[in-house]
Amino acid sequence: MSHIPDQNHLDTLQTRIIFALESSNIGIAATILQNELSPPEIAHILESSPRKVRHLLWGLINEEDQGEVLVHLNEDIQQQFLEDMSAEEIVETTQDIDSDDLADILQQMPSEASHRVLQLMPRDERSQVEGLLAYPEDTAGGLMTTNMVTIRGDVTIEAVLRYLRKIQLPKSLDVLWVVDRRFHYQGSLALTELLQSNSQAIVSSVMDTTIKAIDATTHEDKVAQLFERDDLVSAPVVDEDDILIGRITIDDVVDVIRDSADHNMMRLAGLDEESDTFAPVVRSSKQRAVWLGINMATAFVAAAVMSQFEASIEKIVALAVLSPVVASMGGIAGSQTLTLVIRGMATGHISKANLSWMVMRELGVGIINGALWASVIGAITVLWYGQLSLALVIAAAILVNICVAVLSGTLLPFILKSARIDPALSGSVILTTLTDVFGFLTFLGLATVFLL
Amino acid sequence: MSHIPDQNHLDTLQTRIIFALESSNIGIAATILQNELSPPEIAHILESSPRKVRHLLWGLINEEDQGEVLVHLNEDIQQQFLEDMSAEEIVETTQDIDSDDLADILQQMPSEASHRVLQLMPRDERSQVEGLLAYPEDTAGGLMTTNMVTIRGDVTIEAVLRYLRKIQLPKSLDVLWVVDRRFHYQGSLALTELLQSNSQAIVSSVMDTTIKAIDATTHEDKVAQLFERDDLVSAPVVDEDDILIGRITIDDVVDVIRDSADHNMMRLAGLDEESDTFAPVVRSSKQRAVWLGINMATAFVAAAVMSQFEASIEKIVALAVLSPVVASMGGIAGSQTLTLVIRGMATGHISKANLSWMVMRELGVGIINGALWASVIGAITVLWYGQLSLALVIAAAILVNICVAVLSGTLLPFILKSARIDPALSGSVILTTLTDVFGFLTFLGLATVFLL
Repeated sequence: MSHIPDQNHLDTLQTRIIFALESSNIGIAATILQNELSPPEIAHILESSPRKVRHLLWGLINEEDQGEVLVHLNEDIQQQFLEDMSAEEIVETTQDIDSDDLADILQQMPSEASHRVLQLMPRDERSQVEGLLAYPEDTAGGLMTTNMVTIRGDVTIEAVLRYLRKIQLPKSLDVLWVVDRRFHYQGSLALTELLQSNSQAIVSSVMDTTIKAIDATTHEDKVAQLFERDDLVSAPVVDEDDILIGRITIDDVVDVIRDSADHNMMRLAGLDEESDTFAPVVRSSKQRAVWLGINMATAFVAAAVMSQFEASIEKIVALAVLSPVVASMGGIAGSQTLTLVIRGMATGHISKANLSWMVMRELGVGIINGALWASVIGAITVLWYGQLSLALVIAAAILVNICVAVLSGTLLPFILKSARIDPALSGSVILTTLTDVFGFLTFLGLATVFLL
Repeated sequence: MSHIPDQNHLDTLQTRIIFALESSNIGIAATILQNELSPPEIAHILESSPRKVRHLLWGLINEEDQGEVLVHLNEDIQQQFLEDMSAEEIVETTQDIDSDDLADILQQMPSEASHRVLQLMPRDERSQVEGLLAYPEDTAGGLMTTNMVTIRGDVTIEAVLRYLRKIQLPKSLDVLWVVDRRFHYQGSLALTELLQSNSQAIVSSVMDTTIKAIDATTHEDKVAQLFERDDLVSAPVVDEDDILIGRITIDDVVDVIRDSADHNMMRLAGLDEESDTFAPVVRSSKQRAVWLGINMATAFVAAAVMSQFEASIEKIVALAVLSPVVASMGGIAGSQTLTLVIRGMATGHISKANLSWMVMRELGVGIINGALWASVIGAITVLWYGQLSLALVIAAAILVNICVAVLSGTLLPFILKSARIDPALSGSVILTTLTDVFGFLTFLGLATVFLL
């Protein structure tokens, strides 16, 4: 009995492929790709390679695997391959993949190019894919597949069983959707229920009405929250007239969950667009340059604040040495709160309904930690510079800066969100600017007033 | 037809509950909790409330709902409630929940307390739960449920259909597992296949052997990677003798995926343990104090480096003003790389097999961005201070610091991982220390040599 190959196994195969390429044994690399790896595994290896190697390996894959490999690649990399293919090649490569996967791929392409691909497709399939393309990619309608099985509520279980023998069933089907004659969603019938019901029973009397339909325009993040909360495996999707138009399956939701959690982390580091780990150096450099530039601007704002106190620094050099400590403590305290609040907003645990609880809570944490570290840093300053007055000034600055930091960390995401700005993307840079500026202002300001 | 209530709906209900509590209308809060919310929704509202409110609301829930609510709470908060309950109360509250959910709950408890609960359980159920407790929580064995349906490969489809009518089927079942007489895993039979097969066909001739069994000791992160990669809905779990011992369903894997992506983000901000958004203020303060303390120590290390150059700063105050800019650019460039590498390690895209590609790539990005921002910052310095020599010194320091930052960001996670330290937890603080110290050293060192 062979077990599922784990990550180490895949790493070993990749090492062998890299070795084969380096020693120009293209044949060996091709054999591994064609015989030892499944399409999702091949996609994983392509994602783990730089662009040049990626294109070389793509040419070695079995032609009949290319469609499935394409589906499993992340969008950025999908695009790279699609750009190099003609509309005819795309139609040929993708002929065996599911219509919702094809719609996802077409959604990535420039509209002119996707239009050309659609023109070349058989009519049935084209109209199915066009139906899916009607909804934005990040909604329930964009996530759904039209590949589902519907039955009428007024027929017998026996009739359903007979019907199911005649049609092609999608793999990983767990429930059938029950509709009325105008295709309004009525409820669901699990296959397990179907297998155990009396053959003369009427569907509507045994169906389950607890699974509610999702509106096609619902945002994908909400869809993910619903799947997580209610442990769903599949859910029906309806249009504005409650007509059943498709179903969403958990495997598509898993991608949404991974991506949204991932994006928040990446955005906090200013890496919004870098979904391809091995994107070309120049492209990555450009994307990251934006963030570095914004950071530079804010660093100079902080520097300009500090330069207002050059006269004080000239007299007490310790101020220059200690200023970054004040700014940095505020930055850390603020980013702890910011991260917690952004996570809480993503999971739905923090909303306007309970924002005041969160403000009180974070302010409490800020005062406790502010007081604690103000004392410690004050004590270290006395030991280091032997000046009590300097110690008192830095302690006051630390306390104020940590409290400002936690308050900003709590409120900033809400302010940004109501201005329709993504808090994960811009929150940390605004926050650091605030804590740097406030840190320098309070510390150097107090020092100028009390120490000179 | 009612749709799934969305987040706004839940926020509204929470606002109404908060309002009811504030105006001491406990009855209204109880009515909403008992009649308008499902157990997962109640769990969500508890998670979104501070501790005191949480305990008050818990007392208002229908007793028969408490078990399901408990299952849907995050582990931290589960623990809070369990601590307040006697073993008898725990057994009563959890009597209707699935054995794998119960095992998860018991795994959270101190071993003495969970032992007491097990003693009070009916014998069958106890042995089932004890079987699940044999595997660590973060392995396939810890994720699995023993609630599955197995059939023999040598029987007919008709016999299987008859058998299924007689037993209780788990909800959301999509496949049956086929085993031999010694319970070795052989393959799977989808319910859809079962419905369409000839009733006289033998199971082993129609079963699917492409779903491979997962070893019970496989780490949960690997399980998640497999589910994501192969779009699995459920998978069989075997012990070291290839005996089928359970199955893992996607809903449990979704939690793993959410948690692991989440943990990386939280750890990067030094919030490792804060899974409860509304944890008590004192507990949060303690947890975050550790991180602030570590940060303070590293800030003082950087300050100590700077203080070595006090004589230089006294002569050229601009050095004090510009030092934080150098440190900060290195910090941002480094944390971009670090985040990318940590994400890549989590998704399996970066391993020792392709580390050298990654190093070359990041160094390329570092040199391009280093050169770019060195020029820009040099130009700004000339405009601001009118000193070409100062501008050249800061430009050189920026270039060096950004290159050091991207190299550290790439290599540090691997070094930490081989020392069995979580890169997400300690990576950013070590990195910032490096970029601060290097930034100050190169900038102030070069300035001392060339400008004085």
